[in-house]
Amino acid sequence: MKKVAIILSGCGVYDGSEIHEVVLTLLAIEQNNASYRCFAPNIAQHHVINHLTGEVSEDESRNVLVESARIARGDVEDLCELREQDFDALIVPGGFGAAKNLCNFALDGDNYKVNDQVLAACQAFAKADKPAGYMCIAPAMLPLIYPKGVQGTIGKDSDTAALIEAKGLLHNNCSVDDVVIDQAHKLVSTPAYMLATSLTEAASGINSLVKNVLALVE
Amino acid sequence: MKKVAIILSGCGVYDGSEIHEVVLTLLAIEQNNASYRCFAPNIAQHHVINHLTGEVSEDESRNVLVESARIARGDVEDLCELREQDFDALIVPGGFGAAKNLCNFALDGDNYKVNDQVLAACQAFAKADKPAGYMCIAPAMLPLIYPKGVQGTIGKDSDTAALIEAKGLLHNNCSVDDVVIDQAHKLVSTPAYMLATSLTEAASGINSLVKNVLALVE
Repeated sequence: MKKVAIILSGCGVYDGSEIHEVVLTLLAIEQNNASYRCFAPNIAQHHVINHLTGEVSEDESRNVLVESARIARGDVEDLCELREQDFDALIVPGGFGAAKNLCNFALDGDNYKVNDQVLAACQAFAKADKPAGYMCIAPAMLPLIYPKGVQGTIGKDSDTAALIEAKGLLHNNCSVDDVVIDQAHKLVSTPAYMLATSLTEAASGINSLVKNVLALVE
Repeated sequence: MKKVAIILSGCGVYDGSEIHEVVLTLLAIEQNNASYRCFAPNIAQHHVINHLTGEVSEDESRNVLVESARIARGDVEDLCELREQDFDALIVPGGFGAAKNLCNFALDGDNYKVNDQVLAACQAFAKADKPAGYMCIAPAMLPLIYPKGVQGTIGKDSDTAALIEAKGLLHNNCSVDDVVIDQAHKLVSTPAYMLATSLTEAASGINSLVKNVLALVE
């Protein structure tokens, strides 16, 4: 059975992992007869967003690992425990948490960096030549993890894509039900909720991403 | 297109709605060509559970409506706005939030009550003879909403079932991939994560519940 590591970034589209994307990813992994374990960095969230109003909850602070545990029904591990040797592939769902907690793309699009622990974990899979899937806004991290010229997609938003291209991503426009595959780097990306307007739309691309990532496992 | 109202109870299995159950429910509604709107009571959660440790976060308080917005990507309405006339059916997912926030079954199994606003909303569907689906522990509310002798399931836990039977539920044991249908009350229930050990197992019963609830719409 192929084993997939998942990196979560909290619980909720505006300050954490996009919940639908994570659940659809885990479901697709099961349906493809593979297994998963979830990980998240044990760090404070960049901030807490009230998802009803869209406003920052100034007085609140939450922890990325603790909130990620909500999606994983408690079954999540500290990212520092992630050993690439134990897995066949890596998948990173999206949500603003990927762009605020795993890296700071949402806060400094011109000069963003990936969290050191996240960078080390993702690069371990790249260096081991193991396949990976990044969805939604998570591909913003790709040019900082892989060599310049790595191929991926965040959908069709040319302004957002331009910021990531400036770091070295070779961006491909992509529809919500499709994926971009960089065969050389065994890397699959899909727009998910960068474009999806329903769970069904999100599932179409995510199911393809999971299937293609698992097919790249040797 | 058939319209389904969903009542959420927070965001996270131990103090709110079970996230997987909600996402699988919304996905199944879409896949059956129906539409949904999500609602939640605008009340404080009974408590906040750290989902990593399982312990109560004594210093934290969260609001059921605000946290439910995380699962619904912001698209959730105050339960006091729910008009039964606008919908064909009702579905209530589980998670401890259903037994701590929507009612207090988890806190006082011998003498529990349903939140007044939740009771009014659920009874409106019952009185209008519109179909409803309750999953996981949410069927604990059924004997307080419907007449004594109403049929439903919370799976196979005889101790839990006995407490609900004492209030008037006619409990049927049920496997994770099956549903109990009370035709007279147009009521469908399924164990979901009372028994499920995977998303695939949970989805099997939830997909059947959604399909059967929609089939009961006239």
